[in-house]
Amino acid sequence: MLPTKGYAAMTAKATLQPFSFNRREVGPHDVLITITHCGICHSDIHQARDEWGGSIFPMVPGHEIVGTVAQVGSTVKKFKANDRVGVGCFVDSCRACPACREGSEQYCEAGMLLTYSGRDKDGQPTQGGYSTQIVVNEHYVLQIPSALSSAGAAPLLCAGITTYSPLRHWGIGKYHKLAVVGLGGLGHMAVKIGKALGTEVTVLSTSEQKQKDAERLGAFDFALTSQPETFIRLQRRFDFILDTVSAPHNYNDYVNLLKTDGTMILVGVPDKPTLLEPFPLILHRRRIAGSVIGGIRETQEMLDFCAMHHIESDIEVIPIQQVNEAYERVLRGDVRFRFVIDLGSIK
Amino acid sequence: MLPTKGYAAMTAKATLQPFSFNRREVGPHDVLITITHCGICHSDIHQARDEWGGSIFPMVPGHEIVGTVAQVGSTVKKFKANDRVGVGCFVDSCRACPACREGSEQYCEAGMLLTYSGRDKDGQPTQGGYSTQIVVNEHYVLQIPSALSSAGAAPLLCAGITTYSPLRHWGIGKYHKLAVVGLGGLGHMAVKIGKALGTEVTVLSTSEQKQKDAERLGAFDFALTSQPETFIRLQRRFDFILDTVSAPHNYNDYVNLLKTDGTMILVGVPDKPTLLEPFPLILHRRRIAGSVIGGIRETQEMLDFCAMHHIESDIEVIPIQQVNEAYERVLRGDVRFRFVIDLGSIK
Repeated sequence: MLPTKGYAAMTAKATLQPFSFNRREVGPHDVLITITHCGICHSDIHQARDEWGGSIFPMVPGHEIVGTVAQVGSTVKKFKANDRVGVGCFVDSCRACPACREGSEQYCEAGMLLTYSGRDKDGQPTQGGYSTQIVVNEHYVLQIPSALSSAGAAPLLCAGITTYSPLRHWGIGKYHKLAVVGLGGLGHMAVKIGKALGTEVTVLSTSEQKQKDAERLGAFDFALTSQPETFIRLQRRFDFILDTVSAPHNYNDYVNLLKTDGTMILVGVPDKPTLLEPFPLILHRRRIAGSVIGGIRETQEMLDFCAMHHIESDIEVIPIQQVNEAYERVLRGDVRFRFVIDLGSIK
Repeated sequence: MLPTKGYAAMTAKATLQPFSFNRREVGPHDVLITITHCGICHSDIHQARDEWGGSIFPMVPGHEIVGTVAQVGSTVKKFKANDRVGVGCFVDSCRACPACREGSEQYCEAGMLLTYSGRDKDGQPTQGGYSTQIVVNEHYVLQIPSALSSAGAAPLLCAGITTYSPLRHWGIGKYHKLAVVGLGGLGHMAVKIGKALGTEVTVLSTSEQKQKDAERLGAFDFALTSQPETFIRLQRRFDFILDTVSAPHNYNDYVNLLKTDGTMILVGVPDKPTLLEPFPLILHRRRIAGSVIGGIRETQEMLDFCAMHHIESDIEVIPIQQVNEAYERVLRGDVRFRFVIDLGSIK
């Protein structure tokens, strides 16, 4: 076993604290990664506080992991020592179902194995990237292109792929008008990637202070969702809406901003259901869809795309000792746009 | 003006009663139709009782109209006297917007002109098919193929096209598994058309008594939605769900019956919104969509398709004097599957 240091939530009510645990030995197909950086995702907080149910404690969160290969198993061919690599939201899947075979492991019929708060085949809980090292099967490890910094690339492993995958799946491009709802960790990536795909991006936000950020990120338009006239002015404007907000809000208002045959894609997960009105969908053949992260092949494609277009996450790097304060700031929306933990700080 | 007899709701609280009114004179592009049959659609009841708001009274309902051409305007080329023709849910649209130009008049940006309870350009309210005759611009009139009976064809103009259009739009065919929710006027057409398209159709119903009907109509499977095990047995079974139910029900249960990338299409309109859970959509990239009737070109295609496949609606023909009793029976689900008024009965 490989002794590992991390920060864990011991219960759903506890703040994170130093925690020592063991990683498995490096098997023939495994890669041992020395973690240098890990992003803080809003879903880390949801899960550390068991807000979605099913959390496993003690829990070391973190699924936006970048590091360096320290050792590879005997049959590993994709990686060698000192390669810069990444790990995202899952570390295994059945590898046999149609979804796995086509590279959509996130929709694995048996369920993907989450990077943390999952239960591995041997019954052991998985532990995430707020830690010094991790052992992962090579299939679930990504190459980090040299053009990307480690800290700026870490959030791409969740926030980046979560927005890139639906934009690509629905073929959103040059001749589309896209609204991005919410300008946080996910939203700011959606603006950058949408713009790089040639799309006209409008940011819809509750916060007036985000207007300058939206302009700086390259948005074409900005509108305040706190103002009722926004929902009149932008009626039937968009081909697609990417909704990144994880606080409860009224979907029907947004559906009315779609053209006929338009699609609103949910990637944020409010913890309460929303009242859905059928008429706005029916009268213009509109759709509401959901999307979750992306497959391994698509995640590598996204990293290469971001490298080519000089896209990284806007980040604030912190030592791990500030993780609990960072959680509070995420909940207040007080971060532009992602915290990344420097794992060099762990003692 | 052309004096016309019909049955109307004088207010939202009233039952229907005999009513005399005037149709416009036949203009150069118009067709005067002697109505022989008109189906009773559940939405006639919603609108006669102003349950969706915006109803115009007095209201002669009816938008599943079949009859014979009595007279044509000076420039009409599509029709001649004695042709058997139909009129569906709308009788005009802007004819200039992209939706109208591509033949999707039901999504006209200016709004389609409803066959009844609409307001025409001259300010006059439109009046529907529970009447002796109607004057309609030739573009909005359909040919009834000779293989179809007038009474059995009437419900195709709404129930038929409402189910045909989404099945065709989403390309539902031989290699798909389709669930039809609700076996009423819309649902029984969806089973017939889905089967004719080569699709494996499962009927989901609250009523055990519908099982034999489902089998007779050619359904592959039948499941009771009142039994919780249905939602376990059929989990992730379907590529598409066509939801024809207009009573409030839990969409989330049905979304879980979709495969990854599956679509649930709403064509029934409950009068209350439903609580939507985002996770069932997100975790399998599923979609909820809406669809309303179909365009004129597509409606003609549907009529021709039904003639070729010997598809008519299952009907019970009534004289117009029984219309109020028929409304009560529709609300009780006591009809297999559509009432059609014989307008020869009007005095």
